[in-house]
Amino acid sequence: MLNRVRSAVAHLVSSGGAPPPRPKSPDLSNAPSAQPAVPPEAPRSPPARAGSGSSAPAKTVEARASFSRPTFLQLSPGGLRRADDHAGRAVQSPPDTGRRLPWSTGYAEVINAGKSRHNEDQACCEVVYVEGRRSVSGVPREPSRGQGLCFYYWGLFDGHAGGGAAEMASRLLHRHIREQLKDLVEILQDPSPPPLCLPSTPGAAGSSDPSHLVGPQSCWSSQKEVTHESLVVGAIENAFQFMDEQMAQERRGHQVEGGCCALVVVYLLGKVYVANAGDSRAIIVRNGEIIPMSREFTPETERQRLQLLGFLKPELLGGEFTHLEFPRRIQPKELGQRMLYRDQNMTGWAYKKIELEDLRFPLVCGEGKKARVMATIGVTRGLGDHNLKVCSSTLPIKPFLSCFPEVRVYDLTQYEHCPDDVLVLGTDGLWDVTSDCEVAATVDRVLSAYEPNDPSRHFNSTYVRIHHFPTNACLLVHHASGHQLIGSS
Amino acid sequence: MLNRVRSAVAHLVSSGGAPPPRPKSPDLSNAPSAQPAVPPEAPRSPPARAGSGSSAPAKTVEARASFSRPTFLQLSPGGLRRADDHAGRAVQSPPDTGRRLPWSTGYAEVINAGKSRHNEDQACCEVVYVEGRRSVSGVPREPSRGQGLCFYYWGLFDGHAGGGAAEMASRLLHRHIREQLKDLVEILQDPSPPPLCLPSTPGAAGSSDPSHLVGPQSCWSSQKEVTHESLVVGAIENAFQFMDEQMAQERRGHQVEGGCCALVVVYLLGKVYVANAGDSRAIIVRNGEIIPMSREFTPETERQRLQLLGFLKPELLGGEFTHLEFPRRIQPKELGQRMLYRDQNMTGWAYKKIELEDLRFPLVCGEGKKARVMATIGVTRGLGDHNLKVCSSTLPIKPFLSCFPEVRVYDLTQYEHCPDDVLVLGTDGLWDVTSDCEVAATVDRVLSAYEPNDPSRHFNSTYVRIHHFPTNACLLVHHASGHQLIGSS
Repeated sequence: MLNRVRSAVAHLVSSGGAPPPRPKSPDLSNAPSAQPAVPPEAPRSPPARAGSGSSAPAKTVEARASFSRPTFLQLSPGGLRRADDHAGRAVQSPPDTGRRLPWSTGYAEVINAGKSRHNEDQACCEVVYVEGRRSVSGVPREPSRGQGLCFYYWGLFDGHAGGGAAEMASRLLHRHIREQLKDLVEILQDPSPPPLCLPSTPGAAGSSDPSHLVGPQSCWSSQKEVTHESLVVGAIENAFQFMDEQMAQERRGHQVEGGCCALVVVYLLGKVYVANAGDSRAIIVRNGEIIPMSREFTPETERQRLQLLGFLKPELLGGEFTHLEFPRRIQPKELGQRMLYRDQNMTGWAYKKIELEDLRFPLVCGEGKKARVMATIGVTRGLGDHNLKVCSSTLPIKPFLSCFPEVRVYDLTQYEHCPDDVLVLGTDGLWDVTSDCEVAATVDRVLSAYEPNDPSRHFNSTYVRIHHFPTNACLLVHHASGHQLIGSS
Repeated sequence: MLNRVRSAVAHLVSSGGAPPPRPKSPDLSNAPSAQPAVPPEAPRSPPARAGSGSSAPAKTVEARASFSRPTFLQLSPGGLRRADDHAGRAVQSPPDTGRRLPWSTGYAEVINAGKSRHNEDQACCEVVYVEGRRSVSGVPREPSRGQGLCFYYWGLFDGHAGGGAAEMASRLLHRHIREQLKDLVEILQDPSPPPLCLPSTPGAAGSSDPSHLVGPQSCWSSQKEVTHESLVVGAIENAFQFMDEQMAQERRGHQVEGGCCALVVVYLLGKVYVANAGDSRAIIVRNGEIIPMSREFTPETERQRLQLLGFLKPELLGGEFTHLEFPRRIQPKELGQRMLYRDQNMTGWAYKKIELEDLRFPLVCGEGKKARVMATIGVTRGLGDHNLKVCSSTLPIKPFLSCFPEVRVYDLTQYEHCPDDVLVLGTDGLWDVTSDCEVAATVDRVLSAYEPNDPSRHFNSTYVRIHHFPTNACLLVHHASGHQLIGSS
């Protein structure tokens, strides 16, 4: 059932096509698919012409891979070619003359020279309107734009092993979030605690038994109070999962090759939700102070989760890997000696006698940027990767990767902000070569060189940053000079 | 093999008996069991005479259950009876006239009235000498006390469902730690990084091939550097596991009834290691500032670990529980409606349609002190509980409980301390009724009422604390007025 619903949702939020008949999914049949909630997007930059450069001849599959850049870059065909030029490494930013991005968002990117044929990273910046799907009281109400919700959305998608997943996520993840929020429109606007239980369908509750709506006044003494904020967090978490499942369903198509880290920001009803699945990073710089808004998910930071899974489900290791960690690869001649190891429950190290199965390759190995799961992938959360296999093997790696983000919430109404405060999102390319403090210092230096009212200052500061430390992609979001201004941005 | 080794170790560290013949465990046969490394303990306070009070007649099993209090309390038979008196609730502290505990340790306890017949909590304070078992170079060396190591040890054990586990842990856990450290004596005293690989046995390496000792200069470029500190952490972690396995092996005996939270502190070579498995708490008060040295492991804080296990191993739920969390119990008549839930990957909440299996009892339910795993136990880490079953069921709960502690390290050489700085260990009874700040304030107020050189000030301050906020047990450790003094305490 869950899969059927998810399939329907996946279809709904995909860019093309009307929803399929879903006689058993009444909840979804009310979705206003005929009136897209998000205004139709401008066509994305066209795919690059394969083989136009001087590099090695493209394989057929590469020629078919889409290469597009974020719409807001408004790249001409010439600009697109330059963006794809590994030798020149032109920094791309939105034109200063065009329509500005919301919240004075700046953006800059540069191709990661030599790493892949095309830039596999994507970015997205949207204002999304959410129309409620149902009434909490169970009585269907007329759709009315006035009763909907709006959220601001920024996303960075760091692709790997192909650009398909990042491209798909940048096109659809915010629609999955919108889809998850549709049930919550009325609840989030009602200051009373969310109802713990809702009637099954809008129509069914027309059998209007008010006991169907079990609110917090229920007779159960030990019920938890659930906040509005945690509903938004849950909606974002499930949206990531639906996005990932849609990729699984469509993975045969060339457009969903590879995987991507996803770092997205949702601003809704006064709060900033930063959701991170991967090794990108978000920080807020508030009056010079750095507030980390994410943490990185890598084989090192997620070692114990990975090892526990390998321990509980040894079949996932295919007889090729051991869930134990060793500080280096063991050599066969060391059998019987005593080697340092860590099990899934340990943070410290201890010695163990080396047995035959310890000679298998460790599930988690390496350090820092060289850390790998199954000797293959250096990041442990994200979207896609459904086809990813261990090198020279048929063993799938996906079971060890999680599509779930960690969501951190920042309540904008709780803090005073000055005009130069920013939220910075960067893929690992940025953070590999610079630190939080250096980013904050650069932002401060560049912004202060402009008049406070100069509308180009945020664009340019991003550009300068990227120019000095070439990286894949970076979004610089200026979140206005005081919380009272945010709502009207 | 591992089990055999563990069984041997368990036997070794148990209070009685010589080690059994272990022809295939040469590592252990070198243990100096004939010369106990820890000086023989004074006999513990004798068991209370069952049925001597006015309460209901004791069952046979209760009469057999040991009731002892920590040796350092030096309780007379009369004192022991008073300690067991639920009406009087006399506060017990070590006599001020006797031999003081190391590091000016203060201690106070009071029975948790009405909760259990006897006080199920225990405490321990020891100075433990560790004699090295082997030479890193593989050449057996003569035992010499001069080459050993000493650690200071404090432990609090909050028992439940019987006092056996807490009593056994207070008697043996430090011996398990000593056993784990025996291999490390030479390594920890050598300033060079620990060898990643050791020869299999001291004798075998007498075939003196130096390549058996694979040090950090190995040709592998991607080897991890392991710190001395992480070896001690690993030793403590494994000691907890061995202790728990010994309890499993001996659980048929009456002395290992129930389970216990374990909070222990090891001071070794300038560093304080605080290992916590359960809901006790340790804080350091440094110049009025509070440094948390532990976190509590409860059904709420470990929800996602528990749910993941239930999700991956549904057979552990026995068809009686669901791994999903709901904010309250679902009623059968709500089938088909939509209820808030959290899955193992989620921190937020979302609605799902209620299906038949959602009517099962949630694996994790309740809030705060009422939170429970399988509707039974309110703590998720600790030792023992091997016989614990779901109420009115044969379903074991132990698979969901972890015996592994979280170990935090505090480097005493890195900080300046003033005379009133303390380390406070308390079971949940203390923290339920007071906060970290209140404890720090009370310590400050009481200590400053004494002359700095008054040797009774730490004892008394503990007593005052306990007197005001009756709780099970509390250790107050004064860690000296400057790191340079620590080594000679």
